[in-house]
Amino acid sequence: MKTRAAVAFEAKKPLEIVEVDLEGPKEGEVLVEIMATGICHTDAYTLDGLDSEGLFPSILGHEGAGIVREVGAGVTSVAVDDHVIPLYTPECRQCKTCTSGKSNLCTSIRSTQGQGLMPDGTSRFSYKGQKLYHYMGCSTFSNFTVLPEIALAKIRKDAPFQTSCYIGCGVTTGVGAVVNTAKVQVGDNVVVFGLGGIGLNVIQGAKLAGANKIIGIDLNSDREEWGRKFGMTDFLNTKGMKREDVIAKVLQMTDGGADYTFDCTGNTEVMRTALECCHRGWGESIVIGVAEAGKEISTRPFQLVTGRVWKGSAFGGAKGRTDVPKIVDWYMDGKIQIDPMITHVMGLEDINKAFDLMHAGESIRSVVVY
Amino acid sequence: MKTRAAVAFEAKKPLEIVEVDLEGPKEGEVLVEIMATGICHTDAYTLDGLDSEGLFPSILGHEGAGIVREVGAGVTSVAVDDHVIPLYTPECRQCKTCTSGKSNLCTSIRSTQGQGLMPDGTSRFSYKGQKLYHYMGCSTFSNFTVLPEIALAKIRKDAPFQTSCYIGCGVTTGVGAVVNTAKVQVGDNVVVFGLGGIGLNVIQGAKLAGANKIIGIDLNSDREEWGRKFGMTDFLNTKGMKREDVIAKVLQMTDGGADYTFDCTGNTEVMRTALECCHRGWGESIVIGVAEAGKEISTRPFQLVTGRVWKGSAFGGAKGRTDVPKIVDWYMDGKIQIDPMITHVMGLEDINKAFDLMHAGESIRSVVVY
Repeated sequence: MKTRAAVAFEAKKPLEIVEVDLEGPKEGEVLVEIMATGICHTDAYTLDGLDSEGLFPSILGHEGAGIVREVGAGVTSVAVDDHVIPLYTPECRQCKTCTSGKSNLCTSIRSTQGQGLMPDGTSRFSYKGQKLYHYMGCSTFSNFTVLPEIALAKIRKDAPFQTSCYIGCGVTTGVGAVVNTAKVQVGDNVVVFGLGGIGLNVIQGAKLAGANKIIGIDLNSDREEWGRKFGMTDFLNTKGMKREDVIAKVLQMTDGGADYTFDCTGNTEVMRTALECCHRGWGESIVIGVAEAGKEISTRPFQLVTGRVWKGSAFGGAKGRTDVPKIVDWYMDGKIQIDPMITHVMGLEDINKAFDLMHAGESIRSVVVY
Repeated sequence: MKTRAAVAFEAKKPLEIVEVDLEGPKEGEVLVEIMATGICHTDAYTLDGLDSEGLFPSILGHEGAGIVREVGAGVTSVAVDDHVIPLYTPECRQCKTCTSGKSNLCTSIRSTQGQGLMPDGTSRFSYKGQKLYHYMGCSTFSNFTVLPEIALAKIRKDAPFQTSCYIGCGVTTGVGAVVNTAKVQVGDNVVVFGLGGIGLNVIQGAKLAGANKIIGIDLNSDREEWGRKFGMTDFLNTKGMKREDVIAKVLQMTDGGADYTFDCTGNTEVMRTALECCHRGWGESIVIGVAEAGKEISTRPFQLVTGRVWKGSAFGGAKGRTDVPKIVDWYMDGKIQIDPMITHVMGLEDINKAFDLMHAGESIRSVVVY
């Protein structure tokens, strides 16, 4: 079949809206009509050529929501007309990681997904006879796409596509880091570094978990209003502050340090600060942000020996098929908000504007509606 | 009163055995006759002048066992003739940390202890009218010493002093890191870096916890026999191996990485290797070793984002008054071994030999019996 898609023909060039060829779903695969897709920093990271493993030409996008239009042989978990969210972190429920019960980082299709291919080692997309790579197993910048069924979360039909697509990445990453990775409890003090889309979702996750103080930190004071909308109790603008002064201030605000801190910046210096703002004895710091290639985090081991814990979170520690439908419920039940975060909505033809808005820091989230 | 003690008059000089003056216990304090004391790397670290906060002249030693000889006003938790192990990490059961239930790092007397003083800000030791500093709140290189009651674990009277003193530091640090900090479970795979006294105690802690593979790593093949004595199942001599090769080998031996790794070397490069030998998704690395001043640990944040956890352990995460008596029971019940680790026993007059043996790598543990 033919489908309209925004293709990344090469790094550092705008996406081109063209009609591409899409093969139908093979065994275990599903054809999905994407109804809406968010544009995320990870897409920009790849498009800007910062990801050394980025493949071109490819169809980017990994934060979508849509409707099942056709299922391949052997597909049992979803059916035509089901509403689904594509999962760049699948959940096969069979591999060592899935059966361990300790992690969401399903490995069943990791190697082919990393190569921009379906599990059988081929691509479903082509343009004028030339192969196009899949991206993060999703390629939601195409109106129609094919995914393995283990990479689809079936969601309720009354959830709007335009907002629930954000659960495919940003919402789950932020809220899940609080709920699944940190397991914040009622009364805990939480510090969030970086109040972009992920940081705001960490904040609302902390509010949902009943945190006491929820301190937001950013270099941009405009973000204070955004943070407070989602449950932030205190704001600290650290622009121009020395690292040691940031730590001293947070320790003072939290009576000795935070129970949990979250890095949502991707800056390795901030990751260190976040760790060192943790309470001696038990504070845990969660790295969410994706650092530049080659950058490393450092600290004195004394920080760990005296009881601080350094961990990370990918896709909010969420097991996609199991947890994503629950997060959709939380949204539909009003436990978390998404609508105010969708600052810009556009057609596919304007998708390059979404990247511009992101780079300019003007959007929280842009969504393309097909 | 007068007591015989090995005094560290200055850094990098042998201890001198002299008779010092000891004031009796004040309110909340206890006079203990030390019956035996281990000599630990931390004593050597301070004596060698590597600890920038080391104080001289002082009476070192923090791994002892003895008998209560006199109690000060208000002391209720121990009585004359009780057998006790001094605790360099006290347990007041009143401070924010103790009442949190989340950490053993009691803060009630931390500042004075760090200054080499009793909680009232004075020292009980002097020599020819000159103040001598306490060390880690214990000073077990004196035949008699004074401690706050919150820094004494009361133990059963049938435990021999010569071996149970080792529970005052090394045994608890190693076994506790497994049991309290990592919480190793039956069937887990464990890797131990550095098979000195702490490493061997990690090994026997892992055995006690029912670990599956217990892989010991050292640069010295003589340590293989030692490791196997305490439950090590596999040995790897990494001398001359590249870091990446060590990681690849461990990943191969553990089907993808260890559930828990322990650094017992104090080498920050080894700490990194230990983290990166953890299983993707859930492996945890515990830093036990004390690094050189100023040294830092580093890794790519990707290691954490993909599910590895970096933490540390001090005094094995043990709440001294609560947990040390239990570890004495484990020893007396034959669940853990100590006797084979006490490779050298000597009188106080030979204490400097203990440091020589340690520096030469010839002892697992030397103990002075008074």
